[in-house]
Amino acid sequence: MGRGHVAETAGERRELEPEQIVRLEDDAVVVLDQRRLPGEAVELRCPTAADVAEAIRTLAVRGAPAIGVAGAYGLALAASQGEDLQAAYDVLVTARPTAVNLRWALDELRDDPTPERARQMHQAEVSRCRRMAEHAAELILPGSKVLTHCNAGGLATGGYGTAVGAIRRAWELGLVEKVWVDETRPLLQGARLTAWELEGLGIPHAVIADSAAAGLMARGEVDCVITGADRIAANGDTANKIGTYALAVLARHHGVPLYVVAPTSTVDLDTPSGGEIPIEERDPAEVTARFAAFNPAFDVTPGDLLAAIVTEEEVHRPPYAASLRRA
Amino acid sequence: MGRGHVAETAGERRELEPEQIVRLEDDAVVVLDQRRLPGEAVELRCPTAADVAEAIRTLAVRGAPAIGVAGAYGLALAASQGEDLQAAYDVLVTARPTAVNLRWALDELRDDPTPERARQMHQAEVSRCRRMAEHAAELILPGSKVLTHCNAGGLATGGYGTAVGAIRRAWELGLVEKVWVDETRPLLQGARLTAWELEGLGIPHAVIADSAAAGLMARGEVDCVITGADRIAANGDTANKIGTYALAVLARHHGVPLYVVAPTSTVDLDTPSGGEIPIEERDPAEVTARFAAFNPAFDVTPGDLLAAIVTEEEVHRPPYAASLRRA
Repeated sequence: MGRGHVAETAGERRELEPEQIVRLEDDAVVVLDQRRLPGEAVELRCPTAADVAEAIRTLAVRGAPAIGVAGAYGLALAASQGEDLQAAYDVLVTARPTAVNLRWALDELRDDPTPERARQMHQAEVSRCRRMAEHAAELILPGSKVLTHCNAGGLATGGYGTAVGAIRRAWELGLVEKVWVDETRPLLQGARLTAWELEGLGIPHAVIADSAAAGLMARGEVDCVITGADRIAANGDTANKIGTYALAVLARHHGVPLYVVAPTSTVDLDTPSGGEIPIEERDPAEVTARFAAFNPAFDVTPGDLLAAIVTEEEVHRPPYAASLRRA
Repeated sequence: MGRGHVAETAGERRELEPEQIVRLEDDAVVVLDQRRLPGEAVELRCPTAADVAEAIRTLAVRGAPAIGVAGAYGLALAASQGEDLQAAYDVLVTARPTAVNLRWALDELRDDPTPERARQMHQAEVSRCRRMAEHAAELILPGSKVLTHCNAGGLATGGYGTAVGAIRRAWELGLVEKVWVDETRPLLQGARLTAWELEGLGIPHAVIADSAAAGLMARGEVDCVITGADRIAANGDTANKIGTYALAVLARHHGVPLYVVAPTSTVDLDTPSGGEIPIEERDPAEVTARFAAFNPAFDVTPGDLLAAIVTEEEVHRPPYAASLRRA
């Protein structure tokens, strides 16, 4: 894997193009290394499917839809190199366990593992984000202060974003007053990535410690919570970045709606409920190298705590089982 | 202000003596600089009351009871130096706004600002902690997994601790299986200070990202939550480190009791309810130097979310107004 600087990142108005986030070249999958943002925008070249899997595992590329796109490119790369497709599939599909989009994307590409098909899937992912954003914007009232968690922006989807896409569209429509960005410990995807994206889009925002969200809700400073999702079970239970479940309980307590914005590929009908979603447990050193620690990377929010699940097709309302099956 | 190394901090079994945390010498108040723990145990000498105020403001010494003790020593120091007592009082009392113990301690010392009286107050603070711990231990069931937030240990009280004192006593009685330590963003008092104290006491613990607490509760991994307090209003509403309110809502949702352990000096009958407690807003740079941020240092938990308020006198149960007044 190699690296190259793309651009300085501080301050300027900017929008990420899908091919800046992840793309397939003749001899490599190239990703914007999200571990080094916002300090520097550096590309990471992955010349083999195993390198792509490593980039996914180490969070150089992260976000459920984006790792699906990266996985698809990795499989197409392996095919173009004459590698064993099953071996490439296996190494990619096991890179991270919680998000279902990775498996979905690999399964989609398997029958036609060409660069053209992989690029088409990437474009479709971005198109779905734009459709989700239109649906979600209809849920956002004028003058809203919106709280979001982790990064469900263009970086997480290969372009435009799910939750951040929804916020962006609502902002364009004049509906958003301000965005509260949970810093999202331990890896600070909110403070590092979402704030950087919102800054680039010119959307007013403030980063908060995750534990400050409840106090803001109590003071009426949060009108809705919008997050992405890593896997949505058949009954609507939703796995997302650790801390989402806490937000859902807090939002319910304060009468604030929590909207999940995610593509249909995030829905896993083979998983009946949240209890069956595998929760990735990451290295405790991500919390702190010095102390005994416990570091689950995701939690599961029961569907009945979600005000709506917005996919590119529609706005699902509880109870979710029937409408998710239909989708 | 000067500095001197006390000891290496890694690994060894240790207990903090009250005079290691804060003490009055002939020409200075000396505090263990909590900003540099657990990396190194360094003392900070404060040769004037203004230096003590600065040590309080910059969190070299922190924790509601401990800043009361430090303030009392600062006033005694000013008196011994023939300084203007009113000026010393004013500079000390305004160092931090939320905890009421600082004002309480300064008011207590004002009529007799001698080193002997200040040291007596310090000893009394530690004695109160031991009495609180006895009361609180009666609330903890055998085999409990206890979650705590921020640092309400010996460092926060000038010895023994409130919430951590309770946990320590319950551990000695064989009641505690494990302690979950919220890392407590943004300044990581849990990860840096509480974990260090628990390690020194040999009590099993794991640090978690604050946002992981909800998922642990959902899985039945938290039997009770125990925190300290910075100010308790007359109706039981309690200001404590930002994130306590979120824990209280989450605990209620999961049927987990939250116990506040605090000395009676933390109760402020002049403050009718939480809405009147001043909430310190600290530098956003504590959250992140790079982004627009918002950094409240405390939040207020309504009394009806607290299962009990434990003081050295008794276990208060809701509704609190009558019993707090009686105390």
